[in-house]
Amino acid sequence: MNIAILGLGTVGTGITKIIEGANPTAMTADLHISHIFVRPDRVDQGDKLVSDYNVILNDQSVETVVEVLGGIEPAHTMITQALKHHKNVVTANKAVVACYIEEFKQLARENNVQFRFEASVGGGIPWIVNLERGLRIDAVDSVHGIFNGTSNFILDRMTKTGESFESVLKQAQDLGYAEADPSADIDGYDIENKLCISVDVAYDTLVHPGEYLPKFGIRTVQAKDIEYFKQLGLVVKLMGRSKLNGDHFSYVIEPVLYKAGEFEASISDNFNCASFHGASVGDLGFIGQGAGMMPTGQAVVQDILDINGQVKHLKRTLDTKLKLENRFDKGNYIVRTTSTQFDSLTSDWQVTSDGEYRTVVDIDAQSMHSIMKKVLADDSEAFMARVAGGVE
Amino acid sequence: MNIAILGLGTVGTGITKIIEGANPTAMTADLHISHIFVRPDRVDQGDKLVSDYNVILNDQSVETVVEVLGGIEPAHTMITQALKHHKNVVTANKAVVACYIEEFKQLARENNVQFRFEASVGGGIPWIVNLERGLRIDAVDSVHGIFNGTSNFILDRMTKTGESFESVLKQAQDLGYAEADPSADIDGYDIENKLCISVDVAYDTLVHPGEYLPKFGIRTVQAKDIEYFKQLGLVVKLMGRSKLNGDHFSYVIEPVLYKAGEFEASISDNFNCASFHGASVGDLGFIGQGAGMMPTGQAVVQDILDINGQVKHLKRTLDTKLKLENRFDKGNYIVRTTSTQFDSLTSDWQVTSDGEYRTVVDIDAQSMHSIMKKVLADDSEAFMARVAGGVE
Repeated sequence: MNIAILGLGTVGTGITKIIEGANPTAMTADLHISHIFVRPDRVDQGDKLVSDYNVILNDQSVETVVEVLGGIEPAHTMITQALKHHKNVVTANKAVVACYIEEFKQLARENNVQFRFEASVGGGIPWIVNLERGLRIDAVDSVHGIFNGTSNFILDRMTKTGESFESVLKQAQDLGYAEADPSADIDGYDIENKLCISVDVAYDTLVHPGEYLPKFGIRTVQAKDIEYFKQLGLVVKLMGRSKLNGDHFSYVIEPVLYKAGEFEASISDNFNCASFHGASVGDLGFIGQGAGMMPTGQAVVQDILDINGQVKHLKRTLDTKLKLENRFDKGNYIVRTTSTQFDSLTSDWQVTSDGEYRTVVDIDAQSMHSIMKKVLADDSEAFMARVAGGVE
Repeated sequence: MNIAILGLGTVGTGITKIIEGANPTAMTADLHISHIFVRPDRVDQGDKLVSDYNVILNDQSVETVVEVLGGIEPAHTMITQALKHHKNVVTANKAVVACYIEEFKQLARENNVQFRFEASVGGGIPWIVNLERGLRIDAVDSVHGIFNGTSNFILDRMTKTGESFESVLKQAQDLGYAEADPSADIDGYDIENKLCISVDVAYDTLVHPGEYLPKFGIRTVQAKDIEYFKQLGLVVKLMGRSKLNGDHFSYVIEPVLYKAGEFEASISDNFNCASFHGASVGDLGFIGQGAGMMPTGQAVVQDILDINGQVKHLKRTLDTKLKLENRFDKGNYIVRTTSTQFDSLTSDWQVTSDGEYRTVVDIDAQSMHSIMKKVLADDSEAFMARVAGGVE
């Protein structure tokens, strides 16, 4: 099968290393990279490199286009063009999948080709394929996970060494785990894309990233918070989770406190985990490298092999009408804030105090996130974390 | 697709609940159970029940035979007969797969049908399918896991409550997790079958269960051992593990001590976990229900759906010549024994003492297991556990 790769960054390089490496398997030996789309100033650096996309689109021998440019444009346009030219598309780009999954799936159906996106969630973890396999048999009524390795690295280091957020963020940047602007990783936007895609697949519905989805990141976590949680026997993790209940579903991204020794608490370094609950299979969890050249490249090649082996995606129409409703997702939240508004904002709930920490008892996620928006306007250093239990 | 089920015990019942349940999926709706093979005295209990296997073998409409009888015979004979009658076979029976995988695969090839065994290892965990998917791209050089839920339940309860082995074993028997004769679960024989199958698939080789494979179970673990490990910050788990190194591989089943907070230490109750390491994907772990009516039934139905969807197994010939060699698998072992032979048996290694516990430093698994065979002859209550690290 002839493959064109759009972009030769980290993931693109990983794909070429796997397909063109010295030790092909019987299955990867059947794959051939015929074109690599790069910027015009890089075209001279190799003989497969092209900067004119029409060369790829009009080459009938190219069966599959792999998009690893990242970001929304030109990825969105180039994917739609490839599909319209009857080429299968594989992408590792969570942002463009979360925004345009419906259009891409529709175009793939119309043009009788496949659109695949395994690597867009959980990097090397075979998450989408196993979720879809589960759905062949089971109704799936919840998904949750540690979908961002950078924030997990930061929280894990803080927990193990007692260092400050700023110091550990700097280490993550030096290691190449975090960008110069770390917002996407630490504020939950990266997780939002991945949780949207997971929810789309799990419930056969459509959720788009946006401000209406509650997100609380780890930008304001301090060493003293980690130490306080440790004294309570708890470990904080930045989680995405969703639960289906009849015709509504919950969706929330927030720091969650697990008992030390629990599965989620054990996910160390920059590893990810992802879990779902199916009616007959029960709870299934997956753990692995959520990013990186070779793990993510590997996930892309898995998609290519499924296309080459004519393995069909599970049929999903994404048209189940569900209502986002976080009022049923209740639990206890531990909050650190100096905001003088906090007491009046939480007056409808039972609140206990322990030094500078307050615990709001049995409050729903929607109310808690609304309150924290107001609290942050008053105290930009406030932090909160949900105590695991109930829906977890 | 017409399916005949051999056996209507726990797993057989789970399969019928999934296929004949009130909420079929688009894919399970395509499956039909036409026959269920049972003992002659049960034939009157339903209209699909037959006790004459020839009825199934000679019915051209039966495409797939599901064997969930358990044990070696008549399962082995009935599987070979089904394959020779050009019927696909799906089994959940680890014992018969571990002993006869080569014969079954050979017969399946000769008769142009599929032989599948997902449910034989890890119950509801999609272990074989993901290991095989990994192998499409990667050389896999290690597998390890908690492959037995009963022993994990026992160790987890002992760790959480401080109760005795005997008391917790009784609870496991009352819950239906353990048999009246618990040997297979607590002495490692159940794990042996599952690790043999995993090694066969991972390295494309053939390992048969037998006395030459080192196994040390949890029959002699005492509450005081668990308490001692806890003081060291360690949690004991009964593990199977294997590592490939050139033309030899290690294979060992033994209690292993993980730091509290590590992934393996977090596997609670009767859950299983299984992990492999692949060249590009790195470490991948899977966690789920390793047994039970619905999870295991679900795994069997996954195999049936792959056959119905004409998804091919990874081609494995099981003919890679590898040498079992546990001399390179070195680590520290903590031992409790009153045997007077112990000092002379371990005189070639550094040994440290702490009360009634000794630690043998940097000893290979083969030597340690040989020594413990002699120690047990002298002190039948002796216990040992490997300290995780090195090859883990």
